[in-house]
Amino acid sequence: MIQDVTLSAKPRGVHLVHHELLAGVDLPFEANGVLHALLLHTSAGLCLTENASPEVRLDLDTWFKDAVPDGWPAFRHTLEGPDDMPAHVVSILAGVSVMLPVRRGRVTLGTWQGVTLVEPRDHASARTVRLTFLRADG
Amino acid sequence: MIQDVTLSAKPRGVHLVHHELLAGVDLPFEANGVLHALLLHTSAGLCLTENASPEVRLDLDTWFKDAVPDGWPAFRHTLEGPDDMPAHVVSILAGVSVMLPVRRGRVTLGTWQGVTLVEPRDHASARTVRLTFLRADG
Amino acid sequence: MIQDVTLSAKPRGVHLVHHELLAGVDLPFEANGVLHALLLHTSAGLCLTENASPEVRLDLDTWFKDAVPDGWPAFRHTLEGPDDMPAHVVSILAGVSVMLPVRRGRVTLGTWQGVTLVEPRDHASARTVRLTFLRADG
Repeated sequence: MIQDVTLSAKPRGVHLVHHELLAGVDLPFEANGVLHALLLHTSAGLCLTENASPEVRLDLDTWFKDAVPDGWPAFRHTLEGPDDMPAHVVSILAGVSVMLPVRRGRVTLGTWQGVTLVEPRDHASARTVRLTFLRADG
Repeated sequence: MIQDVTLSAKPRGVHLVHHELLAGVDLPFEANGVLHALLLHTSAGLCLTENASPEVRLDLDTWFKDAVPDGWPAFRHTLEGPDDMPAHVVSILAGVSVMLPVRRGRVTLGTWQGVTLVEPRDHASARTVRLTFLRADG
Repeated sequence: MIQDVTLSAKPRGVHLVHHELLAGVDLPFEANGVLHALLLHTSAGLCLTENASPEVRLDLDTWFKDAVPDGWPAFRHTLEGPDDMPAHVVSILAGVSVMLPVRRGRVTLGTWQGVTLVEPRDHASARTVRLTFLRADG
């Protein structure tokens, strides 16, 4: 199974995209393995975090904004706006790649885990994720 | 090879769990590939770091506590205590997923690398890790 | 396909190593899957970031130096110099592992993504990366 999925444009913040990402994905029947998802961008992140409380996502966004402030005077790459260079830093901190264990044809994470988009741009476009299913041995 | 491994509850800090994680794991005889390990939690991290000096692990813990302070006033998700929201941030920064190259049936990392649990909760429970072995091509 | 690649010693900073890493790699003809690359070190990082602007790489280095300062007084592991412990922290923040989707025998990332070495040591040696190709299902 190989597939590209487009996530709709989101406002700045941290967004649970688990269902949007996986809804149309057809994993092989009863297969075990790992589904790899790579965000094809350098100004946003894709990671696993809490899937329940929206407050957690708000707080994550708050922490990222504080740790990598918009318009930080030491940044030189400012042509695309004060939120551009912070987005590149946050992309690295959050990561762009998740590996999702698959058991009997279904993604199986921890109870509280969900695939999450970290969107640090003020005016982001849609984001593309490249999926590859890797079958487990035996 | 697919398997869940439970790591015993640890005090807050950074812990080398390489042997605890891999001791009971039976990789296919002489196989090459990658062993994927996913921590099934959103309030701790699993990553690779120095396997020798306990000072490095103490210093990592010190840096995380300074970068994401307990009870940071801007956090709203405080119901589960002052160490809860920091743990969600640290989980993202450290990551929850490691990919371990396997050669001829054995995990082979760099000389100084070991699988490490970052435990940012004051009173953590046991932690579960989901393992999947992916065989290399050819 | 399994292979170790040595990256030449680099000055401190953030370096695009995409071509240096992949130039000599022979992926299976027309294969789909994921190429896993693991940096076998705990004092540097391997990640994906912007492949175009050198300013982005300078700014990333500036941010890391500010977030994890050399000679930070709270660090105890100082025997190998003021840049040693920061390098261990930055290694975790940037990560040491990248998963590169492969389609029809070629690595395919986003337009602006490139494999990047984060080198936080003042006097680093060559760095080794362990590559494993995992074939996609079907």
